[in-house]
Amino acid sequence: MVAIAYRLFHEPHKLFSLGLFADALGAAKSTVSEDVAALRQVCEMLELGRIETLAGAAGGVRYAPFCTAAQIRGLAEDLAGRLRDPSRILPGGFLYTTDLLSVPTLVGRLGDAFATFFADRRPDVVLSMEVKGIPLALMTARAFNVPLVTIRRGGRVTEGSSVTVNYVSGSSRTVQSMTLPLRAVPPGARALFVDDFLKGGGTARGVYDLMRECQAEVVGVGVLIEATHPRDKLVDGYVSVLTFEGVDENQGTVRIGPSPWALGQTLGAAGR
Amino acid sequence: MVAIAYRLFHEPHKLFSLGLFADALGAAKSTVSEDVAALRQVCEMLELGRIETLAGAAGGVRYAPFCTAAQIRGLAEDLAGRLRDPSRILPGGFLYTTDLLSVPTLVGRLGDAFATFFADRRPDVVLSMEVKGIPLALMTARAFNVPLVTIRRGGRVTEGSSVTVNYVSGSSRTVQSMTLPLRAVPPGARALFVDDFLKGGGTARGVYDLMRECQAEVVGVGVLIEATHPRDKLVDGYVSVLTFEGVDENQGTVRIGPSPWALGQTLGAAGR
Repeated sequence: MVAIAYRLFHEPHKLFSLGLFADALGAAKSTVSEDVAALRQVCEMLELGRIETLAGAAGGVRYAPFCTAAQIRGLAEDLAGRLRDPSRILPGGFLYTTDLLSVPTLVGRLGDAFATFFADRRPDVVLSMEVKGIPLALMTARAFNVPLVTIRRGGRVTEGSSVTVNYVSGSSRTVQSMTLPLRAVPPGARALFVDDFLKGGGTARGVYDLMRECQAEVVGVGVLIEATHPRDKLVDGYVSVLTFEGVDENQGTVRIGPSPWALGQTLGAAGR
Repeated sequence: MVAIAYRLFHEPHKLFSLGLFADALGAAKSTVSEDVAALRQVCEMLELGRIETLAGAAGGVRYAPFCTAAQIRGLAEDLAGRLRDPSRILPGGFLYTTDLLSVPTLVGRLGDAFATFFADRRPDVVLSMEVKGIPLALMTARAFNVPLVTIRRGGRVTEGSSVTVNYVSGSSRTVQSMTLPLRAVPPGARALFVDDFLKGGGTARGVYDLMRECQAEVVGVGVLIEATHPRDKLVDGYVSVLTFEGVDENQGTVRIGPSPWALGQTLGAAGR
């Protein structure tokens, strides 16, 4: 049972046939089947994610990371609490978040949270924008067991032919460009864009344009932190974990808290 | 037992007290102790990693990802096989590797392999250089359950005070600079540098200089691919998974294979 759990936990969303486990473990298929049923119960009871069984010849068992509404709320509150530390205030009203975005267990849980919310979008790839968004996007890709594709600011010679789009940064109103190797996203792919921060939404808007050039589809946008200003974003239908209202450099206060989604107020509705 | 396995697998190298499991599961400590013993046997038998028990008041149980020599060799051979695909050859003798560096299960296994080799170095942080090396370094950080710290090419205003060093790229002989937020690496930290590619070793040499400025120590360097040319590197004592001899653009051949370390020829000796 532990061996089955190990394989399922380490390759989420991959469908394993019961026969494969039976062969690998030298056990009867009926024993494997019982183990899977017991595993499903344990995961349900302890809220560790979902074990799904598909019947039929092409069937099997797979593990889907799943966060409950309470787990997502707890994660958001924990993060908001840590980000309120006044020593995180940087000149210019910025917030130091890099360290939290690089703690594997933390971004791992956030990736599970996004995988929970976007489960029915069935993405083929997870897109990230260099640099700070990469760990979070990789862990979301891990939860879906799909490849990560990183969009670059400017092209790189070592990645072959590429497609580039220009976009207007929603906050600074400057024109920038983003590039992707042509072979990175196949036509028809379903792409989930995950980033650390959304202010005006210009980057996300650029990702929509870039995917159109690749003949691919953006099936969702998930960000860790959403700034409340500007109020009008260049995209809608995204989901955020935290809402950032700004900092008061004199008072040393950071106004950040769980987003309506993380508070469960729009769970299952936001971003649709 | 599954609940214990879930927690241990998801937070490698973290020490859990048996009492914590007993409380969380409403089980007797002796039951937990038996479960842990059974778990250790299963992991050993099926080569899934190591369950370590520490006795005493400050003791407990922890999980250390572990790859056998055969697993590392298999991983390297699989990767080399995929990289030999002629369609990966890019103009200028480069090789397209970005896609493989972004498959979560693959970089996850590579991270486990580095965690196996560098286990006794006990790093406090894993360092990566933006951009392509980040997924591999994050998964190595995950296997050690320590934070990832990403070194940037050039500074970024949103990360506060920073330390910058110049370095000479070993292959192109151009002077470049690398930057780190001052607060990212505390003095005295033990840092493991993980990157996707090592050619002349200039980047790795720069990382040594950068850590010296942070009063931190580089305890190891692990790279996925090492180029055989130039033969003289600016660093020694690193470990690589694959050895890249170059491509023949006319013949369409890629000369790449498992490194001596991956072949087990220097296991436990290389990089010391």
